[in-house]
Amino acid sequence: MPIPDRRTSGKEAKTAAKDVFSGDKGEEGSFQKAGKFVLSSKLWEHSTPSKTCDVLITFPKDTEDYTVMWLLSRLRARVPDVDVHVRQMAHSPVYGFYLTSAFEVFLQQAENLGLRKKLRTGGMTEYKYDERASFENSDDPTVFFTSGERQSMILEMVNDLRAVQGDELGKIKFVEGQQIVPKLLSDGVVEKMFPLHNSDDLAKLRKTWVSAFFKKQPLDDICQYFGVKIAMYFAWLGMYTKWLVAPAVLGIITFILSNRGEVTRDWCILFFNIFNIVWATLFLEAWKRKSAELAYKWGTMDMPSDALKEPRPLFRGDYQPSEITGRIEAHYPSWKRNIFRYCVSLPVILTSLGVVMVSMLLCFEFQRWVDSMENPPKPLKFAPKIALAVCIGMLDDNYKKVAYHLNDKENYRLQETYENHLIIKLVSFQFFNAFMALFYIAFFIRDMDRLKTQLAALLITKQVIGNVKEALVPFVKQKVKEWKLKKQDAKKKKELDEKEGKDKAAGDKKSDKPKELDSPLMNQAEIESTMAEYEDTFEDYLEMFIQFGYVVLFSSAFPLAALCALLNNVIEIRSDAFKLCTNLRRPFGERVENIGTWQDAMEVMGVVAVMINLALLGMAALCRGCSPT
Amino acid sequence: MPIPDRRTSGKEAKTAAKDVFSGDKGEEGSFQKAGKFVLSSKLWEHSTPSKTCDVLITFPKDTEDYTVMWLLSRLRARVPDVDVHVRQMAHSPVYGFYLTSAFEVFLQQAENLGLRKKLRTGGMTEYKYDERASFENSDDPTVFFTSGERQSMILEMVNDLRAVQGDELGKIKFVEGQQIVPKLLSDGVVEKMFPLHNSDDLAKLRKTWVSAFFKKQPLDDICQYFGVKIAMYFAWLGMYTKWLVAPAVLGIITFILSNRGEVTRDWCILFFNIFNIVWATLFLEAWKRKSAELAYKWGTMDMPSDALKEPRPLFRGDYQPSEITGRIEAHYPSWKRNIFRYCVSLPVILTSLGVVMVSMLLCFEFQRWVDSMENPPKPLKFAPKIALAVCIGMLDDNYKKVAYHLNDKENYRLQETYENHLIIKLVSFQFFNAFMALFYIAFFIRDMDRLKTQLAALLITKQVIGNVKEALVPFVKQKVKEWKLKKQDAKKKKELDEKEGKDKAAGDKKSDKPKELDSPLMNQAEIESTMAEYEDTFEDYLEMFIQFGYVVLFSSAFPLAALCALLNNVIEIRSDAFKLCTNLRRPFGERVENIGTWQDAMEVMGVVAVMINLALLGMAALCRGCSPT
Repeated sequence: MPIPDRRTSGKEAKTAAKDVFSGDKGEEGSFQKAGKFVLSSKLWEHSTPSKTCDVLITFPKDTEDYTVMWLLSRLRARVPDVDVHVRQMAHSPVYGFYLTSAFEVFLQQAENLGLRKKLRTGGMTEYKYDERASFENSDDPTVFFTSGERQSMILEMVNDLRAVQGDELGKIKFVEGQQIVPKLLSDGVVEKMFPLHNSDDLAKLRKTWVSAFFKKQPLDDICQYFGVKIAMYFAWLGMYTKWLVAPAVLGIITFILSNRGEVTRDWCILFFNIFNIVWATLFLEAWKRKSAELAYKWGTMDMPSDALKEPRPLFRGDYQPSEITGRIEAHYPSWKRNIFRYCVSLPVILTSLGVVMVSMLLCFEFQRWVDSMENPPKPLKFAPKIALAVCIGMLDDNYKKVAYHLNDKENYRLQETYENHLIIKLVSFQFFNAFMALFYIAFFIRDMDRLKTQLAALLITKQVIGNVKEALVPFVKQKVKEWKLKKQDAKKKKELDEKEGKDKAAGDKKSDKPKELDSPLMNQAEIESTMAEYEDTFEDYLEMFIQFGYVVLFSSAFPLAALCALLNNVIEIRSDAFKLCTNLRRPFGERVENIGTWQDAMEVMGVVAVMINLALLGMAALCRGCSPT
Repeated sequence: MPIPDRRTSGKEAKTAAKDVFSGDKGEEGSFQKAGKFVLSSKLWEHSTPSKTCDVLITFPKDTEDYTVMWLLSRLRARVPDVDVHVRQMAHSPVYGFYLTSAFEVFLQQAENLGLRKKLRTGGMTEYKYDERASFENSDDPTVFFTSGERQSMILEMVNDLRAVQGDELGKIKFVEGQQIVPKLLSDGVVEKMFPLHNSDDLAKLRKTWVSAFFKKQPLDDICQYFGVKIAMYFAWLGMYTKWLVAPAVLGIITFILSNRGEVTRDWCILFFNIFNIVWATLFLEAWKRKSAELAYKWGTMDMPSDALKEPRPLFRGDYQPSEITGRIEAHYPSWKRNIFRYCVSLPVILTSLGVVMVSMLLCFEFQRWVDSMENPPKPLKFAPKIALAVCIGMLDDNYKKVAYHLNDKENYRLQETYENHLIIKLVSFQFFNAFMALFYIAFFIRDMDRLKTQLAALLITKQVIGNVKEALVPFVKQKVKEWKLKKQDAKKKKELDEKEGKDKAAGDKKSDKPKELDSPLMNQAEIESTMAEYEDTFEDYLEMFIQFGYVVLFSSAFPLAALCALLNNVIEIRSDAFKLCTNLRRPFGERVENIGTWQDAMEVMGVVAVMINLALLGMAALCRGCSPT
């Protein structure tokens, strides 16, 4: 039962591609015709298409029409509040569902989301539908909800499309009450579902965030646009960067003083060591407070109980009625998971880490053996480095596979727990990958000078490469993609022009309307669907975690580590922001209470730092005590 | 307003020393006379004096009568439900308050404690005074409450003796609402306050626990007699000992197999290593469950909120009305504590640990230098060992002082948090003390054979010394003390006999009653007041923590570590039990929810174990890979 489109008042509606299925009666044949009805370039530039579409669902290239129909009919029948418009993409035979909803529906839905809104009388409070009149702008559809809020509500509604008994699509059999769209997404039947960018907000963020280098980040705006999870990452990164100023300054002083004789150096480094550990502890504590403040401000302080959260689509278990909601749900006993975790995952991970470590150490030894030769043949000179790179590459790939496989087998019910356990597994490997060489130099070879140069080289190259990889490469890639599409456009246009020319030649005179209709052949949604996905905050946190490790573990060897980190992070914040605002599809806003496992990981790093620093201190004392070998 | 003594029905009352203050009218002069009225030895042996006294309060030797009077009058006036009998001790000019209460009072008090009692209809439920008739034995004063329960109620009532405005005793000024007795205890005005043993229960425990070597520990009885905290320790120790069977057996197998060639050894040790880490993780997880079960069973699952708990007597702060109870309470802002913790405590502790480490390493190097000499002069041979011992001794003393001082300054509100933070500080030192030598041998000298012998020697000597120190020494000390007192008794008796002889000679004939009256001159309470105090579970946990460390950190070097630990612990359980049941004053039962910081400490040990074992593995690979140096 499609409800009438209440938003077709704007100019966009007139020029927007015609709905292929206006109702359930749509015929399969009409898909093919849809390709012609595309947006005019000039109109698109001026229009704000995200208002007619909040969320886009796309299908893979070879999707059968039956699949699209199947989902469409279910969406229309069971989630009538969501308006679904089907359009064929201009440049591929791919279909897209353009989802949006009416303002009145949003007004009703908003209460479920627990949004906090401004009152007319001032002050914020939780939005209630019955009291909507007392909220500021509640009669203005264009202003009252942010695009992020609308998108979250659409997502909520779409995710609430649940299977009834007997629902099946090809090989996929749904269980009663299962969420259909997430399941289809995880099975690859639906290619992507993503919210559209809002060019106004994005332009504002570009100005106040990406290019405002030394200004405070507009965290509330980021939270509103990208959601709490991403805003939390940037809040953390910002705070970390600010805190880095202290060890950076002290590091410079230590660096200068440590060149004034051995005794001064020893004292400086001892002091700097202790300062670093105190600094790390204080920072982690301070962040806990700050994160609680932010969670309170952003309304994620009291998240619903885990038992009430939806399970991951890939969660397996015996289906039985839930004790809480009464709905049929998958259950998986935690003892089974624990047995697997401790008796399979843990030994496998430990063995893998052992293999990684031993392989790396053997490569290092190989290097040392080559270095000790007086005149090594040239190919042998580079052999250890190549061996190490190949070794790490292969191990990394295999380890990742193993980690994902084990984590899948552990079968966590919630996405959050799944991610947290995956983080632990992946971070363990990366820890070795990042620090093994330094441990080897510090504790096995015991060459403090080499440690210093190695650390400096690692820090600088890693950070430069990181920034290039993160921002420059995707930017260029996206530009190339767009350029290719434009070329394709031009080609099509030319063909059309030629055709038109023939038509003209046939004597039929018309206004230049059709020309406008098919010129750019791309709308915002289509451009965005070609963009890469924002993978998750994982990679960003990982990079920072490793950097935090360099700063706290080996600062005594290279006091300028914090300065390098500081310089990097000033750029990192903006390059991460740039990446999000330019090259990537908009992610759905995720609601988190804190930075999760990363806090624990950094606390463990703090403990390791105490031990490593004490060991370095002891090593220095021993090397001073004994004769120089 | 003293209430009439309702328990003077037994024979004890007739022979018990006369109340010096029977009412508030007691004169100070009568103290001196009290010394004569002492228990007959034979009667004491048969009597059950703990029924007339649940808790004893004693004062230091040089206490002025005024102090005793001051406290007595306040106890009598403000806690009239507690019966206080003042008696002078037989062997010293020390006064004792013998505290007990009437059964009716206990019946009323019990509800506050949240005791769970058996119903007449079967099953346990929380005791309610209004429904007392439905509980089993609720009409039998001798059976209904255990001695531990009675003592807790007395303690609760005595601790509820609070200062009113203007209360002061000498230099001690009380704040309104402050608990008087804990404050006097911490200031040393009251020497001890302790509950008396119950010889029946103790005899039962001796039979079912101390001497029942291979039987299950009667945990519920222990909990009833010694309280949850101590029972929790023994439950943990019991479970740990049981779990040790697996690594002990595997350790033996590894030990045997590892003598069959290098390759077998490497694989065995790798497997054993991984097994140990998995084992440690599983054990810690399993204990968490078990501990929750026990806390539920023993009724400490839902402890009152921290805000409602009484502050430590030594807690300082600004006095202001509590937001929760409305009572005037000391407040200390947590930011002040945190600044001190992170900016003073942490650097000081780190520096101290650094000093400890460097001093130890220098001693080791000294030793190595001496060992490398061909013919060292004799005094030099022992010098490093002596240096190390002196060094450790001095550092330990100083470190302890520093740790206590810092912890006091951190000014924790609750005894529990105070203890937990003290544990962290003290354990850090002990960790270095216990493992530094092994780390030095493993990672600096890299002599795996020496590591093995050193580890074996350490484990065995430490455990033998530990058991001797813990059980044998206090036992002998107590026996010596008792023997001395008996000698003193005999002397006094002789004097009395002589005096009597004189009296007899004076012609006055009497029955031999007076002889019986003054013969042993000691009652149970007095004997117990000479016993040493049970310090706390700290030392016991610490010993086990270090042992756990030897087992999980270095098992690959000496696979029989777990076996040694197992053998030790079978004895340890009983020697700890013996100590508690024989040589020590009874402690008040403390209610805890879990083993607190020790769980965290052992989890950190688990993380350290992963790293150390991986490092040992890498070291072995390197030493195998490179030529033997």
